[in-house]
Amino acid sequence: MEHYYQPEIECASREQIRAWQDERLVKTVKRVYENVEFYKKKMDEKGIRPEDIRSADDLCKLPFLTKDDLRDAYPYGLLARPLSDCVRIQSTSGTTGRRVVAFYTQNDIDLWEDCCARAIAAAGGTTEDVVHVCYGYGLFTGGPGLNGGSHKIGSLTLPMSSGNTERQIQFMCDLGSTILCCTPSYAAYLAESVWERGLQNQIKLKAGIFGAEAWTEEMRRDIEEKLGIKAYDIYGLTEISGPGVSFECSAQTGMHINEDHFIAEVIDPKTGEVLPDGEKGELVFTSITKEAFPLIRYRTRDICILSHEKCSCGRTHVKMTKPLGRSDDMLIVKGVNVFPSQIETVLLNQGYPANYQIIVGRKNNSDTIEVQVEMTQEMFSDNAGVVAEREKKLVDALKAMLGIYVKVSLVNPKTIARSEGKAVRVIDQRNLYQN
Amino acid sequence: MEHYYQPEIECASREQIRAWQDERLVKTVKRVYENVEFYKKKMDEKGIRPEDIRSADDLCKLPFLTKDDLRDAYPYGLLARPLSDCVRIQSTSGTTGRRVVAFYTQNDIDLWEDCCARAIAAAGGTTEDVVHVCYGYGLFTGGPGLNGGSHKIGSLTLPMSSGNTERQIQFMCDLGSTILCCTPSYAAYLAESVWERGLQNQIKLKAGIFGAEAWTEEMRRDIEEKLGIKAYDIYGLTEISGPGVSFECSAQTGMHINEDHFIAEVIDPKTGEVLPDGEKGELVFTSITKEAFPLIRYRTRDICILSHEKCSCGRTHVKMTKPLGRSDDMLIVKGVNVFPSQIETVLLNQGYPANYQIIVGRKNNSDTIEVQVEMTQEMFSDNAGVVAEREKKLVDALKAMLGIYVKVSLVNPKTIARSEGKAVRVIDQRNLYQN
Repeated sequence: MEHYYQPEIECASREQIRAWQDERLVKTVKRVYENVEFYKKKMDEKGIRPEDIRSADDLCKLPFLTKDDLRDAYPYGLLARPLSDCVRIQSTSGTTGRRVVAFYTQNDIDLWEDCCARAIAAAGGTTEDVVHVCYGYGLFTGGPGLNGGSHKIGSLTLPMSSGNTERQIQFMCDLGSTILCCTPSYAAYLAESVWERGLQNQIKLKAGIFGAEAWTEEMRRDIEEKLGIKAYDIYGLTEISGPGVSFECSAQTGMHINEDHFIAEVIDPKTGEVLPDGEKGELVFTSITKEAFPLIRYRTRDICILSHEKCSCGRTHVKMTKPLGRSDDMLIVKGVNVFPSQIETVLLNQGYPANYQIIVGRKNNSDTIEVQVEMTQEMFSDNAGVVAEREKKLVDALKAMLGIYVKVSLVNPKTIARSEGKAVRVIDQRNLYQN
Repeated sequence: MEHYYQPEIECASREQIRAWQDERLVKTVKRVYENVEFYKKKMDEKGIRPEDIRSADDLCKLPFLTKDDLRDAYPYGLLARPLSDCVRIQSTSGTTGRRVVAFYTQNDIDLWEDCCARAIAAAGGTTEDVVHVCYGYGLFTGGPGLNGGSHKIGSLTLPMSSGNTERQIQFMCDLGSTILCCTPSYAAYLAESVWERGLQNQIKLKAGIFGAEAWTEEMRRDIEEKLGIKAYDIYGLTEISGPGVSFECSAQTGMHINEDHFIAEVIDPKTGEVLPDGEKGELVFTSITKEAFPLIRYRTRDICILSHEKCSCGRTHVKMTKPLGRSDDMLIVKGVNVFPSQIETVLLNQGYPANYQIIVGRKNNSDTIEVQVEMTQEMFSDNAGVVAEREKKLVDALKAMLGIYVKVSLVNPKTIARSEGKAVRVIDQRNLYQN
């Protein structure tokens, strides 16, 4: 039997959803135009007045918003309500430059938690469940989002936070956790750890809600088998609220977007043109209920396909595929956003030429990343000790920039292949995005 | 001007407070007797029936509860409501043996957050404030408690969690944090870091709420001066709910106990006899509003003095001194509970004799701990390398047991002084508890 948290919304007619979106979009655009200098300026530049937006059909007239806009507006530039009305800040982990900071009124948090509650209900969550949350807490949205959703359901919430696998497994056994929330790679690691300890019969998990990074169908099957659960995908962005922007239902064929709060579009990343259902393009979100930090046509850079096909779960909200890639060059490695430009900056700062290659792989369901860097003729050395020392220095500098361990291999001059066109900087061997 | 969160409660007449306590205690005792096998058994053994408890005057008839009782009842033995009514678990950091796990209904969390909101209001918190919480989140009660209290006030909450001092200071400057919540030693460290960077004029802090470990008046003055704030103490126990069981007001002369939720007693730790106001003894709490996990006469092992003297802040609830010591041998080092018996266990397991001394100190406002261990005649070595290797092995084993770094010094046989009576195992040079 399918569980819902707000069936009257989750299974509303398309007409009803459309009516909500029309009404809320018109109000949101009026509100941001009147309250946020940034939006007023952008709309004025394009010659668009709030009155021009009369329904969701007019959404395509509005300008896009990018992550750079958010960084430039840091910290208070996009705030649509006075600070005294805001009760929470969350933030991306942004390891370099300015972070993205998102603001929430109490009502914004309330609606965000509703979205997470829908995801937990879709995974079978009821007041009888023990929801084990090992996403990080604090500024990261994973922990607080799922924690809040679990409270809405009335499940018993275990705010485990991340790390300490021994304790995770001990509590899982002792307290009878039934729904696990974490990244898919940590789920895979926990599954292995449970088997290594021979505890697979002592856990009572029935479902998992895994997001914040890309994962394959193979990985899903592996986790499902090892933990004896059904594994559900979840998607979200701190900028847009956090996890729960969309979530998987029992059909496990894409994630329903909470369309009463967010309007989704898929665009051609080059032209900005809106693409029809079934076509692959960049996902764009407009929030239509957020008070403190409403975003209009926010370009996620995630490549997706939307589908309005009837779903066996009974939900009527549009489905999105897992992200099938990125429209920028960002990599997500071990859950951390990595831009090749960040790596290049470190190399140049340390006096290396820009001849390098980034190789991303996956070992035991965990990401690996290596940078091969050419030494110049001048710095060339065949003394292993000298090379090892230089490599260590680069490892430390990359750790400081990215927050994760990157393997570094210094290679001999002229050994990295030159291409005639754009250099192939990144080799991603993970096949996360195969479709 | 003094700020209150619930003035009608915080400044209620003594008669009103007494009336609440009488009524709620009677109901609580009846409830636990009927719902918790553990309490029924303990009361039956003492020949006490729920009807014998007719007011708070009868509290002294009830048996005590200890931390060992809680450990024995792990995980579900003291639960007074079905699991399906519970929405949260929090836990002590308990590094050895069974942890203490506390359960909450939504109403329990609501009242706990009220207590924290009173503490934030007492520190001047309003909807205009930015409350910077760098207590840990997750199972630890510090983060979620103050976070929830800040939401109740309607302040803007920054859920920073612990660690990453660079980021703490960056957000503090960028977002204009006004109230800092963390351990006093982390506050001292942050203060130093702010000065080292010359950022003291870029922070807008006005107050701090510092708890979870003992701190001196000198430390308070140091933090207040360096950060330009007023520093408030806060007290709590996970078992009893978390931070906010009591909190300091503008008078800064002890912490008001939230007497509408908790009845406090001070007893002679040897005889169990209740002591009058002004006398030093062990603090005992009875929760009178908790639904999921009510504790009756819980012995905190903290040595305190209670005072009903009129307070200049206008609050009428009884005040407790900072803990002035412990009635057991537990040390709190770097916020972690350390029992000398844990250290002894490690030494014996590694083949050392029980001739050792634990020296606890404080350097730059941060705790230090060293164990001096006698080598036996057989294991004696004057080879520095061999000794260093053995010391490192002990450091690792102690880290695994306690979770913190303990300096180890192996000393020559017969160099630790023998006393004729009870061995002096612990030398605490911190003077945290001077009165």
